[in-house]
Amino acid sequence: MNINPCDIIRKKRFGGELSEVEIRAFVDGIVDGSFADYQASALLMAICINGMTDRETLALTLAMAKSGDTLDLSDVAGVKADKHSTGGVGDTTSLILVPLVAACGVKMAKMSGRGLGFTGGTLDKLEAIPGLSISKDTDAFKQQVRQVGCAIIGQTAQLAPADKVLYALRDVTGTVDCLPLVVSSILSKKLAAGCDVVVLDVKTGSGAIMDTPEKSRKLAEMMVRIGNLSGKRFSALLTDMDQPLGNYIGNALEVEEAIDVLAGRTQGDLKTVALTLGAHILRNAGAADSVEAGIAMLEEKIKSGEGLKVFGDMIEAQGGDRRVTEDTGLLPKAPRRVELRADRAGYVTRMHTSDIGEAAKLLGAGRERKTDELDLSVGIVMNARLGDAVKKGDLLATLHVGDRSDRIGAYNLLKKSIDIGDERPAPKPLIQGVVE
Amino acid sequence: MNINPCDIIRKKRFGGELSEVEIRAFVDGIVDGSFADYQASALLMAICINGMTDRETLALTLAMAKSGDTLDLSDVAGVKADKHSTGGVGDTTSLILVPLVAACGVKMAKMSGRGLGFTGGTLDKLEAIPGLSISKDTDAFKQQVRQVGCAIIGQTAQLAPADKVLYALRDVTGTVDCLPLVVSSILSKKLAAGCDVVVLDVKTGSGAIMDTPEKSRKLAEMMVRIGNLSGKRFSALLTDMDQPLGNYIGNALEVEEAIDVLAGRTQGDLKTVALTLGAHILRNAGAADSVEAGIAMLEEKIKSGEGLKVFGDMIEAQGGDRRVTEDTGLLPKAPRRVELRADRAGYVTRMHTSDIGEAAKLLGAGRERKTDELDLSVGIVMNARLGDAVKKGDLLATLHVGDRSDRIGAYNLLKKSIDIGDERPAPKPLIQGVVE
Repeated sequence: MNINPCDIIRKKRFGGELSEVEIRAFVDGIVDGSFADYQASALLMAICINGMTDRETLALTLAMAKSGDTLDLSDVAGVKADKHSTGGVGDTTSLILVPLVAACGVKMAKMSGRGLGFTGGTLDKLEAIPGLSISKDTDAFKQQVRQVGCAIIGQTAQLAPADKVLYALRDVTGTVDCLPLVVSSILSKKLAAGCDVVVLDVKTGSGAIMDTPEKSRKLAEMMVRIGNLSGKRFSALLTDMDQPLGNYIGNALEVEEAIDVLAGRTQGDLKTVALTLGAHILRNAGAADSVEAGIAMLEEKIKSGEGLKVFGDMIEAQGGDRRVTEDTGLLPKAPRRVELRADRAGYVTRMHTSDIGEAAKLLGAGRERKTDELDLSVGIVMNARLGDAVKKGDLLATLHVGDRSDRIGAYNLLKKSIDIGDERPAPKPLIQGVVE
Repeated sequence: MNINPCDIIRKKRFGGELSEVEIRAFVDGIVDGSFADYQASALLMAICINGMTDRETLALTLAMAKSGDTLDLSDVAGVKADKHSTGGVGDTTSLILVPLVAACGVKMAKMSGRGLGFTGGTLDKLEAIPGLSISKDTDAFKQQVRQVGCAIIGQTAQLAPADKVLYALRDVTGTVDCLPLVVSSILSKKLAAGCDVVVLDVKTGSGAIMDTPEKSRKLAEMMVRIGNLSGKRFSALLTDMDQPLGNYIGNALEVEEAIDVLAGRTQGDLKTVALTLGAHILRNAGAADSVEAGIAMLEEKIKSGEGLKVFGDMIEAQGGDRRVTEDTGLLPKAPRRVELRADRAGYVTRMHTSDIGEAAKLLGAGRERKTDELDLSVGIVMNARLGDAVKKGDLLATLHVGDRSDRIGAYNLLKKSIDIGDERPAPKPLIQGVVE
């Protein structure tokens, strides 16, 4: 199909609806080079301003999903599920729900990207476990899912390569926050990865890509709508990111908190969100009659220790040291601690979540550029949550500092990120909505 | 000034007005490479869709004009004038008005680009004159303008280099026809070239970039408005391009027709437009009291032979053989002629002017790509004009065919480009408006 890039660009420039054929020509073109990057960025801008219909967004998603390798999981028995988060701070739900859901008999076959972010992605966190590898070929990946019930590995470079090109362009042309582009980027990788059931965690609040509840809801609705149109079963939760979800921020630190939750030692928001997401998977996969029943099943897998055992099995299957599940002391530790204490009494009225994430990045927990090397041991442990009453001198957070950390920058930014005031703020719901 | 390209792009994406500083950062950035081409094309698309205020367009024009070398003509005595056409078929007015205006005492210091087009640009036409060179350094250029009164040379690569980058991008991203971009592209080169008075010939009709009179008028108005805001004196004519302006189409052929006009042998639309443009220059430069008086002065320079003599002087000063002004037989001639004759009686009801230009290009008179080599001898001589009554077998046009010409393609396209019908069409005015 020989379609001139300019014709496609001009159609969208003047507000037209692109056909499936045109969208496929665009997506194939950015992969084979017949659509130059400056042409792609012009089209992306026209899409940002003039929008896309659902039909266009679905076509874009499917074309991107098919732009490289697609995983066929049909030879893995049972329902296969996947989960995606739009990203937040202290957001370690995957490490908790993946083994728990697998312990309930629903296969979790998860491919993650590395991406940029406040802390590393799920892959970086997993690499904090001594010996663990996130590289596996497709056959070995499927074999692990069959045997252990779950696996989390890195996406191959050939998974939705069109998304890589487009994301890199969007990042440098001011076109990241465009709903149809966000939706097609996320969903294309999920569709290419071949699962039947996908649950999405759409964050809202001061640490989320979508800063208002309205935008987050629109994103969640569009993802579920387009995802379901593709023939898979999608649900989305809208969850609060006005403060870090877990109290541990950093790669090894988040593994530690996930293990604490799996071991039944830690309660709180992180666990609540992880279990609710997991329960939606169980319900959508037909393994639980309701979300409530699903949560009860997952709680049972914590109590019985089966979740933690499956996590250990997964670590072992990926070459890691499963003893971390019993002894988190085996995880890398930062050499120094710096405490942040309240300089007045009052209530924690506000958290600037993205700045807290930024502070963790200054310590070395996250990447500014793709090539940055992480320090997996560093991070922040929060001791206060929104609405907590604090006295002057109370511990608010502990910074875990490494040799390459910008300790002073991180401390100052963290300090500014936690507001203490006189009035206790009205509590906000943790789970603000469900879209199915 | 360190401004992030994304911030500039996003401001325009959301419909904001860019500041002078932001526009300068953009223009400087595309020249020094800190603004990548994919970022520039995203911004260009946002400008196409969300527009620019006059203030932005002026800032863009000035920044582009200053993006490279600017010519200082203050050491050339008198008023210096320039002329620009938005481009058409058989559009040889420059070769006529430049020596005539110079003969009236107003200096014509013209720098032309080569560009793409149906036939070559003014530079290509001049190169059809044996020996003539369009390369001169600035000092020699100014010296020629002082001595002869006029010069037409090629733009240096360093004249408005930002425009070169942007034009190349617009050409491949569907963003050519965007008023503020067209205006800033044309005006930036005129401003950099340093003249005091500029007259613009904005074409309208089937062979023009702006296809409707409304769009052409808007373009003319914006150019004059922005041009005058820059402190120069601009006027624009809106002229008809529903048929080729002159009857000769092709490089050597157009030189021949220009000489015929200068020698007083040829009347008609080409002469009318050339003299009207020239008269606006004379009026704007203070050399004539009115356009009518200016036309009379120019007619006088034809009658006296002074215009043709100045043309010869200019040719000689640029190394060419001035004898062509007396003997057009010295111009390159195509080896073959093919006649196109009417296959029915009637009136010439319509000319598809851009297709006629395309036919000339198929013969080798114009470029498809920058690297294409022209055959300066080939082209088309038209024998009919709109509204003419023709009998079956009457000569409509003669193709001047070269060895590399696509003779059959050109013949068939030309044939389709001239409609003959039963009713004489209503005549349209040649000069459809004046904007000053």
